[in-house]
Amino acid sequence: MMQPVILRGTNVTNQPAAPLVPPKRILLGPGPSDVPPRVLAAMGAPTIGHLDPQYLQIMDETRRMLRAVFQTKNELALAVSGTGSAGMEAAVVNLIEPGDEMIVCVNGVFGTRMRDVAQRAGATVHSIEAEWGAVIDSGAVAQSLKAHPKTKVLGIIHAETSTGVHQPLEEISRLVHEAGALLLVDTVTSLGGMDVRVDEWKIDACYSGTQKCLSCPPGLAPITFSAAAVSAMDKRKTKVASWYLDMTMVRQYWGEQRVYHHTAPINMTYGLYEALRLILEEGLEQRIGRHTLHHRALRAGLESLGVRYIPKQSLTTLNAVMIPQGVDDAQTRKRLLEDFGIEIGSGLGPFKGKAWRIGLMGTSSNKPNVTLLLAAMETLLPEKGKALAAAGEVYRTAD
Amino acid sequence: MMQPVILRGTNVTNQPAAPLVPPKRILLGPGPSDVPPRVLAAMGAPTIGHLDPQYLQIMDETRRMLRAVFQTKNELALAVSGTGSAGMEAAVVNLIEPGDEMIVCVNGVFGTRMRDVAQRAGATVHSIEAEWGAVIDSGAVAQSLKAHPKTKVLGIIHAETSTGVHQPLEEISRLVHEAGALLLVDTVTSLGGMDVRVDEWKIDACYSGTQKCLSCPPGLAPITFSAAAVSAMDKRKTKVASWYLDMTMVRQYWGEQRVYHHTAPINMTYGLYEALRLILEEGLEQRIGRHTLHHRALRAGLESLGVRYIPKQSLTTLNAVMIPQGVDDAQTRKRLLEDFGIEIGSGLGPFKGKAWRIGLMGTSSNKPNVTLLLAAMETLLPEKGKALAAAGEVYRTAD
Repeated sequence: MMQPVILRGTNVTNQPAAPLVPPKRILLGPGPSDVPPRVLAAMGAPTIGHLDPQYLQIMDETRRMLRAVFQTKNELALAVSGTGSAGMEAAVVNLIEPGDEMIVCVNGVFGTRMRDVAQRAGATVHSIEAEWGAVIDSGAVAQSLKAHPKTKVLGIIHAETSTGVHQPLEEISRLVHEAGALLLVDTVTSLGGMDVRVDEWKIDACYSGTQKCLSCPPGLAPITFSAAAVSAMDKRKTKVASWYLDMTMVRQYWGEQRVYHHTAPINMTYGLYEALRLILEEGLEQRIGRHTLHHRALRAGLESLGVRYIPKQSLTTLNAVMIPQGVDDAQTRKRLLEDFGIEIGSGLGPFKGKAWRIGLMGTSSNKPNVTLLLAAMETLLPEKGKALAAAGEVYRTAD
Repeated sequence: MMQPVILRGTNVTNQPAAPLVPPKRILLGPGPSDVPPRVLAAMGAPTIGHLDPQYLQIMDETRRMLRAVFQTKNELALAVSGTGSAGMEAAVVNLIEPGDEMIVCVNGVFGTRMRDVAQRAGATVHSIEAEWGAVIDSGAVAQSLKAHPKTKVLGIIHAETSTGVHQPLEEISRLVHEAGALLLVDTVTSLGGMDVRVDEWKIDACYSGTQKCLSCPPGLAPITFSAAAVSAMDKRKTKVASWYLDMTMVRQYWGEQRVYHHTAPINMTYGLYEALRLILEEGLEQRIGRHTLHHRALRAGLESLGVRYIPKQSLTTLNAVMIPQGVDDAQTRKRLLEDFGIEIGSGLGPFKGKAWRIGLMGTSSNKPNVTLLLAAMETLLPEKGKALAAAGEVYRTAD
């Protein structure tokens, strides 16, 4: 048994750490977003067993509410036991077998990640690349599908968290299905904050994360598959590369069979359940409208301070903006965090040190947050005195 | 936007589900175990960002406390963002490349699972099989290592949750290292409740789950790798099959570099942090002793009721017992749940309908639980009147 207070040759001690006292932040980065008290309370509800009749009922209702938020009738809709990136991996590895051809649209970090995931799953990947900050052009998709007629899956990011680009999907979906392929869409930064119409847009595999517009802590990845996607899984000749993410088994636990696969993250599911309740209480349409309004107000304010948006077609959930000339990135974020308790995100890849990513997602998307952030920015940026008036004008005309 | 109250052709509505009111259970199954109020409170603390300076400090302390519980000085010790099975997959896929040879010891559900995971990762797997309920014999290990001299990794289950078998590891570890292979050990049902000496037993990859003897909700998989295991990862010629579980990237986020990989499950980490604090406050040695005591008391009580243990070498954390002749499995478990609020586990595989699995793990391992379960069992089993006295005798002699 362990005797020493300090493990030899290290500074590892068996002393308990200090009490946990996380500070109260205002989360306006690219995720996590602020978590409502009701969701936090649900996270701390007593843990019960993953096969308890009452837990199975919680799972059933979670699936039903997920379908409503995904706007789908898909039978297969559940929460993967991992964060959004596990959702991406689950979507890819369940549809791809070694040697399958997949087109991946790459215009930021998450398209790049999806390509990596697909290659590891053994796909022959064809990339459609666009500049970071630009959308993927449907003409390029048509061309790539023509050049690669055996394509099984086309993967694309609806809301590129690294650039703030809002990707239109309807025309691309038409092209993909005309070519007989499946459409796989990342909605990590859009689901629950922007319109994601899985059935109407004929998305075959769609995943998200809990910590963005759903305003639940990170840890689960909502996912849904169309009947065509399920049929593709049923026709697989090889086992799914990941045992943990294998939907042919996971869906038997979430479905009526209730076959034990792995122990579900019970309290995370509580959190998601409550977060989905809050969304449906607000109404999905109202919630999407709220995200649009506060995005417009923030944008008017920031632009009045000379801050330029990176994408032409911006998400309403995430604002990716260039840092004004002469302004220190790290210092400004530090001041926001320490003086105002506000977290915003830094740039990634080519935008490292050059951009900020300001999220107004889920609960975080509200008037006090927009107002406080703009007021704080006025104290930190060279331009002064215009931001609150510009935002106020948006709010006034919306009333 | 979503208009209809009921999605066409389904019973999917956009009505929020009923409020979340999970019942209070006494969790004496094979996991999850009861979660202490302090851990539940931590789960519901305000979410902060995964790159927040204060969160990074929480991660550092979590790693330090994990090392103490694993009894290791390993640099690489962290929590995988998934349940125990994700820990198993992470251990295997990071060490195995396609074509590598791996020996997997199979004497229950979790050895069987590990073999499946290894095969999906592309390993050529050699199985050492033993009867369910028996330990893996070190002679069989010596033989298999001799027959397969190119073996890179040998995988074995320390605490087989499906059979309750406690697997001795020291002799097997010696054989594995003499053969130049790495030792990979599943301690899902032992870490924090039984002795797991990663350094002294020279375990190269060791993983667990949060929801057993650590008494935290399910959702994270503590894992640690030895320097030899890290060196094997560094020498890989191919990328790790799973992007999500790729330790070459995950460790850069948990390490000093803080390179963003995926968004950590913040509130789950809070829960684990508090659970580890409770373990170190109690003292690892005292905690292991507590598990031994209550196991002995329960065992004395159950055996006095004619209940037979399956394994010769039983875990102290999980009691796998045969259901006495003439006793109805489902009905008894239902009565325990509904009349006493007690969850116990059913048998798996060949023991389905024939065995119960009674966990006394983490917080759940205490005198009131043993007493209540034995009292309840006396009302449900044909034998009567001896169990409490038998358990009491164990407690008396321990005082």
